[in-house]
Amino acid sequence: MRLSLNQITTRRWTLPEVVAGCVRAGIGAIGVWRESLAATGVDDAVRLIGDAGLTVSSLCRGGFLTAVDSAARRTALDDNHRAIDEAAAIGAQCLVMVVGGLPGASRDLPASRAQVAEAIAELAPRAAGCGVRLALEPLHPMYCADRSVLSTLGQALDLAEQFADAEVGVVVDTFHVWWDPELFPQIARAAGRIASYQICDWITPLPSDVLLARGMPGDGHIDFGPITAAVRDAGYTGPVEVEIFNQQVWDADPDHVLTDLITRYQALPA
Amino acid sequence: MRLSLNQITTRRWTLPEVVAGCVRAGIGAIGVWRESLAATGVDDAVRLIGDAGLTVSSLCRGGFLTAVDSAARRTALDDNHRAIDEAAAIGAQCLVMVVGGLPGASRDLPASRAQVAEAIAELAPRAAGCGVRLALEPLHPMYCADRSVLSTLGQALDLAEQFADAEVGVVVDTFHVWWDPELFPQIARAAGRIASYQICDWITPLPSDVLLARGMPGDGHIDFGPITAAVRDAGYTGPVEVEIFNQQVWDADPDHVLTDLITRYQALPA
Repeated sequence: MRLSLNQITTRRWTLPEVVAGCVRAGIGAIGVWRESLAATGVDDAVRLIGDAGLTVSSLCRGGFLTAVDSAARRTALDDNHRAIDEAAAIGAQCLVMVVGGLPGASRDLPASRAQVAEAIAELAPRAAGCGVRLALEPLHPMYCADRSVLSTLGQALDLAEQFADAEVGVVVDTFHVWWDPELFPQIARAAGRIASYQICDWITPLPSDVLLARGMPGDGHIDFGPITAAVRDAGYTGPVEVEIFNQQVWDADPDHVLTDLITRYQALPA
Repeated sequence: MRLSLNQITTRRWTLPEVVAGCVRAGIGAIGVWRESLAATGVDDAVRLIGDAGLTVSSLCRGGFLTAVDSAARRTALDDNHRAIDEAAAIGAQCLVMVVGGLPGASRDLPASRAQVAEAIAELAPRAAGCGVRLALEPLHPMYCADRSVLSTLGQALDLAEQFADAEVGVVVDTFHVWWDPELFPQIARAAGRIASYQICDWITPLPSDVLLARGMPGDGHIDFGPITAAVRDAGYTGPVEVEIFNQQVWDADPDHVLTDLITRYQALPA
């Protein structure tokens, strides 16, 4: 499987810088963030990425679909429609969906999950009409309250399976799912549904901001070999995207991060 | 259901102080920690607790059964045999088992889980012979690497069900399981196996030390009513233990913490 650089890994780089950096490093695919895409402009980004011959493995991200009232939900849905248009424009293989946590002071998990399902039902046909596949990303359960009421791959598949597999897939991100006792049966179940495979490591102790808890592959506790093999056995042939939120990685020279990443990636069991 | 004070909630108190504090506050049950028990001495503790008429809802804790080699595993098992003896001596309703994470530099989750199963198979009959019930506690997945390779109630039940329900039960701790999309079916499945029900809240943002991330009931995102109802519907009639690791709670006057706790407990849906 080919390596893809999710651009958050080299956060200080603009999109043109990421594209140039990938070309220098010989990386053939990137995951693009919407903020960065907006800063460059969609038309310029399409030209840049096309000229460089890069594949866009994902657009990050849609979602945050839970909200305290119908006006806020409508605002969120409208923003997701724009995200779908952007994903279509840059030819992203999927639009990653981080679905949102408990809105406001709500403690009603079932209601939030129902909001997510309802929103996906609105967005999926629209996305499919634009040739965009939504990719539901289960987030580690430690983000359930504030970022994602989808916490396991099984739960993401329960929702995804309500739609055609070309419309709604799932993200397998090692950081979020490695601990799950149901991981391997659920990856097998996900055959045909894996829209994105992301790798980064689980490091301990967790840093003070758990959003920045992700390590370079090899620095933590995750055994990547069996997970990668299971994803491949489930028929996934797309890029392996490396998405790392980590202050030390962000503070390092991005070109060095890419070189290091390639070395580490090649050292992982195939 | 009756309230029980897990003594970690008033960490600065010695066991005699906890017992006296519970009597003052009218709390009829306590969860005891081994370190505190050792400091007081088992014989004195038995007399103190008995004189005060308190029930011991749990002894915390056994476990940490994963280890890098057979000598370290034997040391861990021997310590658990002592914990069983202590639980028997103080008449604890269960010995809480925090099973351990990945030992040393291991990334082999299946091997660690197998070590846990093997250790429980050694300990369960010994415990049962002493009238002690082991209580497998699934810990939140954010502790999988360093504290517990048992991460979900379903996974804990898969292991517990290999033994008689009087020998091996499970702990339902809201903090650890609230996010789980399988929570309610698994609580129903746990009928007859719930050895301990513990409550504390999930607060955001997580504090810098995630071991201290627990909130007083009502301060966070957990909807206690449906979980308590499900535990009761599963036939659990024992105490509800409040176990809070939280620096602010520890810094407060313990008598005030108990008063506050009783107020909050009474305000929760029954």
